[in-house]
Amino acid sequence: MGKKIGKRTLEFSSAPHIAGAAAVVGKKEGEGPLAADFDMIFDDDYAGAKSGEAAENKFQTEAARLAVEKSGFAETDIDGIFSGDLQNQCTGSHYAMRSFDIPYIGLYGACSTATESLMMSAAMIDGGFFENVLCGTSSHFCAAEKQFRFPLEYGGIRTPTSQWTVTGAGFSVLSKNTGGVRITCATVGKIIDMGVCDINNMGGAMAGAAADTLTAHFEDTGRNQNDYDLILTGDLGVVGSDIFCDVMYDAGYDIYSVHKDCGKMIFDIENQDVHSGGSGCGCCASVLYGHILKEFERGKYKKAIVAATGALMNPQTVLQGESIPATAHLIVIEACAGD
Amino acid sequence: MGKKIGKRTLEFSSAPHIAGAAAVVGKKEGEGPLAADFDMIFDDDYAGAKSGEAAENKFQTEAARLAVEKSGFAETDIDGIFSGDLQNQCTGSHYAMRSFDIPYIGLYGACSTATESLMMSAAMIDGGFFENVLCGTSSHFCAAEKQFRFPLEYGGIRTPTSQWTVTGAGFSVLSKNTGGVRITCATVGKIIDMGVCDINNMGGAMAGAAADTLTAHFEDTGRNQNDYDLILTGDLGVVGSDIFCDVMYDAGYDIYSVHKDCGKMIFDIENQDVHSGGSGCGCCASVLYGHILKEFERGKYKKAIVAATGALMNPQTVLQGESIPATAHLIVIEACAGD
Repeated sequence: MGKKIGKRTLEFSSAPHIAGAAAVVGKKEGEGPLAADFDMIFDDDYAGAKSGEAAENKFQTEAARLAVEKSGFAETDIDGIFSGDLQNQCTGSHYAMRSFDIPYIGLYGACSTATESLMMSAAMIDGGFFENVLCGTSSHFCAAEKQFRFPLEYGGIRTPTSQWTVTGAGFSVLSKNTGGVRITCATVGKIIDMGVCDINNMGGAMAGAAADTLTAHFEDTGRNQNDYDLILTGDLGVVGSDIFCDVMYDAGYDIYSVHKDCGKMIFDIENQDVHSGGSGCGCCASVLYGHILKEFERGKYKKAIVAATGALMNPQTVLQGESIPATAHLIVIEACAGD
Repeated sequence: MGKKIGKRTLEFSSAPHIAGAAAVVGKKEGEGPLAADFDMIFDDDYAGAKSGEAAENKFQTEAARLAVEKSGFAETDIDGIFSGDLQNQCTGSHYAMRSFDIPYIGLYGACSTATESLMMSAAMIDGGFFENVLCGTSSHFCAAEKQFRFPLEYGGIRTPTSQWTVTGAGFSVLSKNTGGVRITCATVGKIIDMGVCDINNMGGAMAGAAADTLTAHFEDTGRNQNDYDLILTGDLGVVGSDIFCDVMYDAGYDIYSVHKDCGKMIFDIENQDVHSGGSGCGCCASVLYGHILKEFERGKYKKAIVAATGALMNPQTVLQGESIPATAHLIVIEACAGD
């Protein structure tokens, strides 16, 4: 039975376990510092498909199939899927997930979908509805550039604050009945608009939402940064991470030494020409399900916060003069007792 | 505590109640047969805004505020929001909901969002996490035409199977602690692709998903059409409704006399030049929260199925030669005992 702590934090007393997880990434990600921890690296970013959109479907399907396989469950054991992505009308997920004969619940949280889908999966298990849930998300550099900025052939010049959309997908099977790391609670994001209008500064637009959710988490639980050995954000990048840590410091929480950001980790910022770092739904999902879970297995982490952030605009709203609202959903991952 | 019945049906033993609901529609909808049951009709479809997109935000904000007001709760009593819409990256919801200081969980189910949001709200209440949840969705004719078909100024000719996107929004507050009609169970949709590639035949593309979910509901619960005094679909329109009822008949369920479709109800099909009927997220939401709930109050219905359907493509996937996947999420609404 679920429970709410404070104003926005969901406690999962049954602590659903990640029974299996997989991260599938593209060539550039496979040349980055986390390469050894990904389950599959496609040398061809199109994965044999004819478009970036269709390729994203393949990445998502592969990651989902691998996650199910690694969980040890059959497809028929999975009660539901939570997924979503950045493509218009979330077609990255729909065309991938139609190959699974499993009830499907679609989410939209932009790049926060990695943790939004985990949060909802954990809630459905802890609430008594489901036993095993498949969840995840993806992004693809070519599909995202075409849709949000310019076709690649245009050769647009990128600003210093811009981020590089990760080509990758990450999925996990969350289960009531197995071992593995546990999801013990989640803090739900609000929609926070800091008034940022620069579509090439997603990190800046999202930093406020990350700070809002993390502060709410600390207030709801009575915890602080000393209770965690990692506070991981999704894709704030270099620019957004600095703002985020500064805002948290001003709020009384010194998280500089415990904070990491998937967008800064997945690429070699100095040498891979990604400006402020990686971004996209697939950034947090592939780093979480590839690298971070393996760090838990290696004993490096025992208790971590993962707060994936999402920018909730579209190119048209920005052209219409709107600022960029954002959100961040936060989950807590803990090693199994005895691990 | 929640429970799953059969393969895909969620039972809500605490049976969350609809404490308040509101439907806000545009001019054409306000000239249709259900006009008397809507809470607010804008004579100006732009509602004073400069674009269809910004107008949709206003419709959604108005419907949500009215639903909260009618529920008797303060905004601070609401634990969370589930919403989504058809605009790219669901900006119809994000820009509307940023004016509420409430945790927000974004969904994408295309036109199935009306019931997807109710299903998830009921699950979060029944699972023990939330007490009061605001949920709903919207669509806007001008925003949808521009995005999915042609700018209005182009004057494109519509095919006989095409549907007219409803300008409207519907929201409700679902609550653990009040009276009102109850949500007693839900059956989760799968992604069903019937191979339809005609973007002007959404009803045909979605009929299979509606039949799949309704059949699963009957199998999971051991019920059939005789257990309900209404089986309502979201926006199959004339074409899709015929296919849906025929498919159900072939599966052994004669639902012709108990079936209605919001897309056929909201407009005067003969005289309002809407071809196959209404469509869009706002179609099911405004008919459900405007007309159907008032029919429950008037004692016409005691136990109804509402299955909102959603087509899960985008214009680009169709241009790339893909067929149109669809889904349908089903909820059961029952009058309070004693009503």
